[in-house]
Amino acid sequence: MSILWEQCYARRVQQMQGSVTRELMKGVRPPGTISLAGGLPAEELFPVEQIAAAAQRILQNSGPQALQYGPTEGYMPLRELLAHQLNQTGVNVSRDNILIISGSQQGLDLLGKVLLNPGDSVLVESPTYMGALQVFRPYEPVFVAMRSDEGGIVTEELEPALQRHPKCLYALPTFQNPSGVTYTLERRQHLIELTERYGVPIIEDDPYSPLRFEGEPLPSLFALESARQNAGGMREQPYQGNVVLLNTFSKVLAPGLRVAWMVGPAPVIRKLVLAKQGADLHTATLNQMIAYELLSSGFLEEHIPLIRKLYCERRDVMLAALSAYFPETARWTRPQGGLFLWVTLPEGVDTTLLFKEALEQRVTFVPGTAFHANGGGANMMRLSFSNVTPGQIEESIERLGKLLRAQMPSA
Amino acid sequence: MSILWEQCYARRVQQMQGSVTRELMKGVRPPGTISLAGGLPAEELFPVEQIAAAAQRILQNSGPQALQYGPTEGYMPLRELLAHQLNQTGVNVSRDNILIISGSQQGLDLLGKVLLNPGDSVLVESPTYMGALQVFRPYEPVFVAMRSDEGGIVTEELEPALQRHPKCLYALPTFQNPSGVTYTLERRQHLIELTERYGVPIIEDDPYSPLRFEGEPLPSLFALESARQNAGGMREQPYQGNVVLLNTFSKVLAPGLRVAWMVGPAPVIRKLVLAKQGADLHTATLNQMIAYELLSSGFLEEHIPLIRKLYCERRDVMLAALSAYFPETARWTRPQGGLFLWVTLPEGVDTTLLFKEALEQRVTFVPGTAFHANGGGANMMRLSFSNVTPGQIEESIERLGKLLRAQMPSA
Repeated sequence: MSILWEQCYARRVQQMQGSVTRELMKGVRPPGTISLAGGLPAEELFPVEQIAAAAQRILQNSGPQALQYGPTEGYMPLRELLAHQLNQTGVNVSRDNILIISGSQQGLDLLGKVLLNPGDSVLVESPTYMGALQVFRPYEPVFVAMRSDEGGIVTEELEPALQRHPKCLYALPTFQNPSGVTYTLERRQHLIELTERYGVPIIEDDPYSPLRFEGEPLPSLFALESARQNAGGMREQPYQGNVVLLNTFSKVLAPGLRVAWMVGPAPVIRKLVLAKQGADLHTATLNQMIAYELLSSGFLEEHIPLIRKLYCERRDVMLAALSAYFPETARWTRPQGGLFLWVTLPEGVDTTLLFKEALEQRVTFVPGTAFHANGGGANMMRLSFSNVTPGQIEESIERLGKLLRAQMPSA
Repeated sequence: MSILWEQCYARRVQQMQGSVTRELMKGVRPPGTISLAGGLPAEELFPVEQIAAAAQRILQNSGPQALQYGPTEGYMPLRELLAHQLNQTGVNVSRDNILIISGSQQGLDLLGKVLLNPGDSVLVESPTYMGALQVFRPYEPVFVAMRSDEGGIVTEELEPALQRHPKCLYALPTFQNPSGVTYTLERRQHLIELTERYGVPIIEDDPYSPLRFEGEPLPSLFALESARQNAGGMREQPYQGNVVLLNTFSKVLAPGLRVAWMVGPAPVIRKLVLAKQGADLHTATLNQMIAYELLSSGFLEEHIPLIRKLYCERRDVMLAALSAYFPETARWTRPQGGLFLWVTLPEGVDTTLLFKEALEQRVTFVPGTAFHANGGGANMMRLSFSNVTPGQIEESIERLGKLLRAQMPSA
């Protein structure tokens, strides 16, 4: 009487894997567990009152519009404001270059839909954002993992891979998830030069660059590409480069609103609009209007420094705790911004096993294998410092350190 | 210097078409144009104050939760409440059978992702919802259009198509978009019987059934399937039938919130959860909590009758206007609920041409071809009566009638 659903699934379902962190988030955790796993922003900094006040004003003044269907491209004043702000950085875009999306994850899905045929190769960093691997996999690409070091993707090794006509390169140049690493300016310039030479599109995923604690801001790949276009005598032309940029309100305002945006050449945006029409018609109107109000009023500009300050303190506590409690053979990155750092343990240590032991000690993190497209990372782990107090960081790193020292008695 | 994006697109991009109504919505329209085109709910009935009050309470009491990342499956109290309400109708589901989605359109996309390989055949009604055609097309299925009449899909003609192992059947059994037609009980039972016999899953898209103006409510295909399971001695088992049901808050609360849900066998829901993880991580938390509050407080139950009453009045005005102004050779449906009715004009009348003339007369509608998977419908049109005043209905139907009489001097 009941049908065999297993026989109904599309081939791509075999490629769908649950995200490790999301599975962890819903799993049963002992009470009091300290999570260094999810990339959750600090809830205590959510501007709850300002969002509530904005929602009130919007519903009072523009209730029907805020609750009605809206255009797939997004709320026009928000698109125009985002274009205007980008143009302050020397690029030349208009609202036609901007699509509002329901979180960056949706942007990656739309790009997969618009770009990827089965068998296409996608260059990714190693490690890379596991959510990107997860979203691209059902489009059945072949991932080509490129080496990264403390200066970002090792562009000196890219050329052979670019010569083989990959469909695109997926890059997180600033405070990378998971590693916290930022590409140097030289690597950025080299990457743009190389991908232009070989005609390879770049997907630049940039949720974290507003969260810089220290050091000088670096131009995005998108801005560098724009600058080359301008230098090539096309200053008056709207952007038509090979970078599509993903930005989001999730890390600077609140992820639960699900509002992000992408920037790219207008013809590419038009294809993405068609894909989004099918995906969800449009992003929730009220939420877009809330984001617009907090951006246009200047609130976000005042708010973001508070986030930077808090995360910087937490990063410092985590770095100090790692020095105090982790074995001397462990290595970790020292991010200048963002939410994460990345620990590399000696070969032979298995962070997936460590994860199970840590859960009993009421600490979670994400094992390194999740961030590797084609295997590897077994001795690595991602630690998030954004949504834990200094006390929790100290406590959890101490517990992890004890487990590691027990595993590595020689250390 | 700039790459050739046209050469980068995936094959499926060729299948992406803009929705006619959405293209119309953003097109330049002469001021004062009366739109019978979009399926927009009446804005004057949006419960703006209640939504604003709910948003305040939620942000005040649960701000961090409402603004933080949430589980992909959806806000748990909402899933439990929806399951509880469904169980009042004699089915047996739990939250594990329910996935909250960002509008029904997303549900269709997730089903396409989980079910459709290129070349799979999908049975659809003729006419059918153009948004479904649009969302499925990039998955490269073959549409098989089944005849419908005033009693819904003609089940007597279905068997040869079911014997050829289609991947699924997409059905809008109640106040169909675009036709306004409702399947009879007999057709519903016959359809369930046939699809069970041939093991073909049904996607039941049901946004409109709460908006019944007259006549007795009919059980959904989902409920009929559940009843058969119960009769088969499996009353204690959770639902495991071959229907996946799509419901939404868009037509009874507000579409701009983008909150809908799907109900199906738990293993299918788990696959859809994986697909949704990749698509947008989760539906906006605040919006889900608003929907939960207005549903759990009993507000929606009191609110929906107001929508029914208004749409019923508007339908009556449109029916009367059609009788008064349209040529005698025109035929139209008389829906017992929903937002739309469907006009069939004599062979030879081209509603796409009529559309252009009508736009000059400041009236829009959707030409019938948009709702046909494999051609046809050139002499048909969808008229929406939900978001226009009685005066606008009268005025616009009179203008359309004049154009038609000019085209058909013999009528």
